[in-house]
Amino acid sequence: MKKTTQFKHLLHSPRLEFLLEAHSGLSARIVEEAGFSGIWGSGLSISAALGVRDSNEASWTQVLEVVEFMSDATGIPILLDADTGYGNFNNVRRLVRKLEQRDVAAMCIEDKLFPKSNSFIGERQPLADPDEFAGKIKAAKDTQRDSDFCVVARVEGFIAGRSLQEALQRAHLYREAGADAILVHSKRPDADEILSFMQHWDVPCPIVIVPTTYSGTPTACFRQAGVSTVIWANHLMRSSLVAMQRAASRIYQEESVVQTEPHAAPLEEVFRLQDAAELRAAEKAYLPEKRLETVGA
Amino acid sequence: MKKTTQFKHLLHSPRLEFLLEAHSGLSARIVEEAGFSGIWGSGLSISAALGVRDSNEASWTQVLEVVEFMSDATGIPILLDADTGYGNFNNVRRLVRKLEQRDVAAMCIEDKLFPKSNSFIGERQPLADPDEFAGKIKAAKDTQRDSDFCVVARVEGFIAGRSLQEALQRAHLYREAGADAILVHSKRPDADEILSFMQHWDVPCPIVIVPTTYSGTPTACFRQAGVSTVIWANHLMRSSLVAMQRAASRIYQEESVVQTEPHAAPLEEVFRLQDAAELRAAEKAYLPEKRLETVGA
Amino acid sequence: MKKTTQFKHLLHSPRLEFLLEAHSGLSARIVEEAGFSGIWGSGLSISAALGVRDSNEASWTQVLEVVEFMSDATGIPILLDADTGYGNFNNVRRLVRKLEQRDVAAMCIEDKLFPKSNSFIGERQPLADPDEFAGKIKAAKDTQRDSDFCVVARVEGFIAGRSLQEALQRAHLYREAGADAILVHSKRPDADEILSFMQHWDVPCPIVIVPTTYSGTPTACFRQAGVSTVIWANHLMRSSLVAMQRAASRIYQEESVVQTEPHAAPLEEVFRLQDAAELRAAEKAYLPEKRLETVGA
Amino acid sequence: MKKTTQFKHLLHSPRLEFLLEAHSGLSARIVEEAGFSGIWGSGLSISAALGVRDSNEASWTQVLEVVEFMSDATGIPILLDADTGYGNFNNVRRLVRKLEQRDVAAMCIEDKLFPKSNSFIGERQPLADPDEFAGKIKAAKDTQRDSDFCVVARVEGFIAGRSLQEALQRAHLYREAGADAILVHSKRPDADEILSFMQHWDVPCPIVIVPTTYSGTPTACFRQAGVSTVIWANHLMRSSLVAMQRAASRIYQEESVVQTEPHAAPLEEVFRLQDAAELRAAEKAYLPEKRLETVGA
Repeated sequence: MKKTTQFKHLLHSPRLEFLLEAHSGLSARIVEEAGFSGIWGSGLSISAALGVRDSNEASWTQVLEVVEFMSDATGIPILLDADTGYGNFNNVRRLVRKLEQRDVAAMCIEDKLFPKSNSFIGERQPLADPDEFAGKIKAAKDTQRDSDFCVVARVEGFIAGRSLQEALQRAHLYREAGADAILVHSKRPDADEILSFMQHWDVPCPIVIVPTTYSGTPTACFRQAGVSTVIWANHLMRSSLVAMQRAASRIYQEESVVQTEPHAAPLEEVFRLQDAAELRAAEKAYLPEKRLETVGA
Repeated sequence: MKKTTQFKHLLHSPRLEFLLEAHSGLSARIVEEAGFSGIWGSGLSISAALGVRDSNEASWTQVLEVVEFMSDATGIPILLDADTGYGNFNNVRRLVRKLEQRDVAAMCIEDKLFPKSNSFIGERQPLADPDEFAGKIKAAKDTQRDSDFCVVARVEGFIAGRSLQEALQRAHLYREAGADAILVHSKRPDADEILSFMQHWDVPCPIVIVPTTYSGTPTACFRQAGVSTVIWANHLMRSSLVAMQRAASRIYQEESVVQTEPHAAPLEEVFRLQDAAELRAAEKAYLPEKRLETVGA
Repeated sequence: MKKTTQFKHLLHSPRLEFLLEAHSGLSARIVEEAGFSGIWGSGLSISAALGVRDSNEASWTQVLEVVEFMSDATGIPILLDADTGYGNFNNVRRLVRKLEQRDVAAMCIEDKLFPKSNSFIGERQPLADPDEFAGKIKAAKDTQRDSDFCVVARVEGFIAGRSLQEALQRAHLYREAGADAILVHSKRPDADEILSFMQHWDVPCPIVIVPTTYSGTPTACFRQAGVSTVIWANHLMRSSLVAMQRAASRIYQEESVVQTEPHAAPLEEVFRLQDAAELRAAEKAYLPEKRLETVGA
Repeated sequence: MKKTTQFKHLLHSPRLEFLLEAHSGLSARIVEEAGFSGIWGSGLSISAALGVRDSNEASWTQVLEVVEFMSDATGIPILLDADTGYGNFNNVRRLVRKLEQRDVAAMCIEDKLFPKSNSFIGERQPLADPDEFAGKIKAAKDTQRDSDFCVVARVEGFIAGRSLQEALQRAHLYREAGADAILVHSKRPDADEILSFMQHWDVPCPIVIVPTTYSGTPTACFRQAGVSTVIWANHLMRSSLVAMQRAASRIYQEESVVQTEPHAAPLEEVFRLQDAAELRAAEKAYLPEKRLETVGA
């Protein structure tokens, strides 16, 4: 099944679905192997991994290259966190074409201004004019060639300190403009904003949430509230960060990797994830006998 | 001090020095914060992180972009694992210019053929003609504009099953061609090849080693043998891999991140590594008062 | 009709077909507007336009980006001059996937060694082992997902000073490995090599030629000899070069552009080729009324 | 002399200076060979050559790659037309660092909004808040490491239909923020706006102009008015466009290149511009004897 179709089914599945963050080809493959049905290409994690800030310091084509590696490495759909779409409706149109070419199943755009700030930094971030943002969504939907490509509209109203009413109005407007799903974001330590939004959301358009600050809320609550999809938005990057800091510190102190090796994947596991075996088999298929010897196959 | 000068000093320091692998801006910054004096830009780790094989599947400019992010994120020197130089002497010349522009302090090239295979895969890998490889080194040295930029010549003789004598001959030839240091590689489970090489190496040219398969050998042995620099070549990537696999598996099973959070860096730590505070301060310096409100500063 | 299918039809058309070189999005669009059925993405022209040599100084992903812009700008098929495939069979496999994603209809690979030299420079250039090259072709054909994607195998035997017999042997071998067409290259000032090759080519596999040095031969000769497709391989780049040199020299001498303007396209023509009108219309469709005023629409 | 110093001298030279547009490595080299002291890296021409619109459709890193090829190919300074700086002050800071690394001598930023429209399209384009734009200039100047790197502030007041008074106010504000020169743009068919601006400009800060629509005004007028530098902003791209259209049309009609060859540069001229001779010499210096034969040297 096409990745776009996989993602569309996931959005409309009767079950609560889960996406896990990835930020590289390797982490994307790990998400797939763990059993997840889809991947969140997190703007925060991608920028953090690159070593820059989540403020559009990396260009959109640099992000595109990261997500291309992720897409090449996996068979499950990716929802790219495309920030504000990296400009106006016209930049969004170009982005949609590029994502479709790279077999990225869906993109999420948020109603903030370019360049964006991370939603967990600062207060009262400025929001996009809702009509202009609706125009972006419409432009994206008119541009896609694969009818199953999905556009998720992210409502940053709560992040910006706006009212439930405004969040709902924006969500309805974006849905009418063609959004395949609404992502309602919140940075409260509890799920209050999300749950009250769900109580008022009465149209058949899937809701996606990102329980980062309110991850203590039992998942059953989200299921009960009728949420379609939960995104665990940055946990692989944050887990790898701790592991790398520990390993680096230990190796520096001990001037040895002996104590670190047990906590590190064996080389064979790295080669397995890179699918080295396929290349060895391909060498047998495509290299002449005389060359095979020299590559040691 | 310039990064190139830092690296040259490190090579010639009377102490045994250590480089730790990084494969991204984030991991590079972690290496620096742990206290290391230099970073190994590992070809294996960079390719693994990208989701491709260590067989020159990523283009040399894609690798260059990774190492540019790494260099931008850190103040300590990077030694790039540049495989075979990605072609002939002319490709090496272009690479040197590009690395110098990006403030990469040094590069290591190995005497194998393009496209390369990872040294731990297969047997009897073909080696480059030693004279042609020496020409690459000479071309690199003639090209660099910063006299402290270093070229490390990696001898793959042991990897290819050649004799100690051949390894030594190649090392001497490469040194005479201008190499600033020799990296002797071995994939034995013990340090025998390395130590016998050291016994016969009697010229004042620093030796760099990569104890991946023979990491059980006490570091004191390397120090005693007169090694200049030890590279821990892939341990952050392999540590992050395990951490991500565990996190992904746990989150998938539990449909919750509650048990994972304690093993993940807090968002604040991510923002600290991204130097978000500097951006907040810069907003105050460069944005007009009226805009500051809207970014919530 | 898909670009790949267009190209396959072109190869098998009963008429003599023509491809014209392009090296940028702009030149590609000009080729299409002139009426041509296909574009030759010339390695020489692309490298020359970038300002580097035709010796794989630009990385394969840099070439890929150029051809992506060309493909985005046009509706007719592009045959990319992919040199040697930028490495071995495995690099070729990766290239095929990337070209298909970017809607490039076909690629031509030549039986020389990486990094290549331009065929018009030097003598007795080394050739690839024919079996290894056949393996590349087979790998490419096994990799493509669109059954109409075409692989053209370029025989450099005449360029390297080899015999007609060897050229024919190689051509047959490559055809058997799956090549959709054979490009026979020659740098003689006459078409003798080409015409003798055609006399002996008795299998139903299209022949493509590149009359650069023997462009004085009447086109009717090629038609009569049964050639499928003629590539005019570098004429837009070379024409633009003369025009730019003249304009630069004149403007420098005259300290004025008055005499140059009549030989330069009006801005309106530039905007037409960029399809500025489509963007103006899209602004009306996707920007809210209040924004339209501010963009002056 | 460093390129940055060359450019600073040019800005402050007592003579009227001229920059000519380039949009690729090849065209940049042509500008240098014609005798010009500097190159204008035109946003319009670069986007047109890529095949996209002058509306920030290409990402800033794609533009950066073009200008890197231009810089590598030439020894004279490049002033990059960096549109609005591709975002806010923080994007500008990142850009400055990247340009300095690539040896681009100077950048010009304009007081419009991202994504921009070409100044010759539409009316009443929105302008940036002057204080915010001044903050961008200050941020750029604080970021540069080479004290001779120049920031040119482009005043779009006349383009947007604003008054002479506003144009002057903006120019003074930008100069006070640190701009090394002011570019006053106008799209009138005569130089009236420019000349009245010059009459009121009484501070020792160089003025740069772009006589595209008013190119009929004698150059002596600009010299007399005290202009520092004239930019011929898109004439190589527009000249190449006509030449390519003519060649394509003629070749298509004639099914032959015979009539086109006299208007096209010989291959030898292409190879000369690519400096093929240097590579041949380098092969002799760096390849072993036995390889030289095979490359035909």
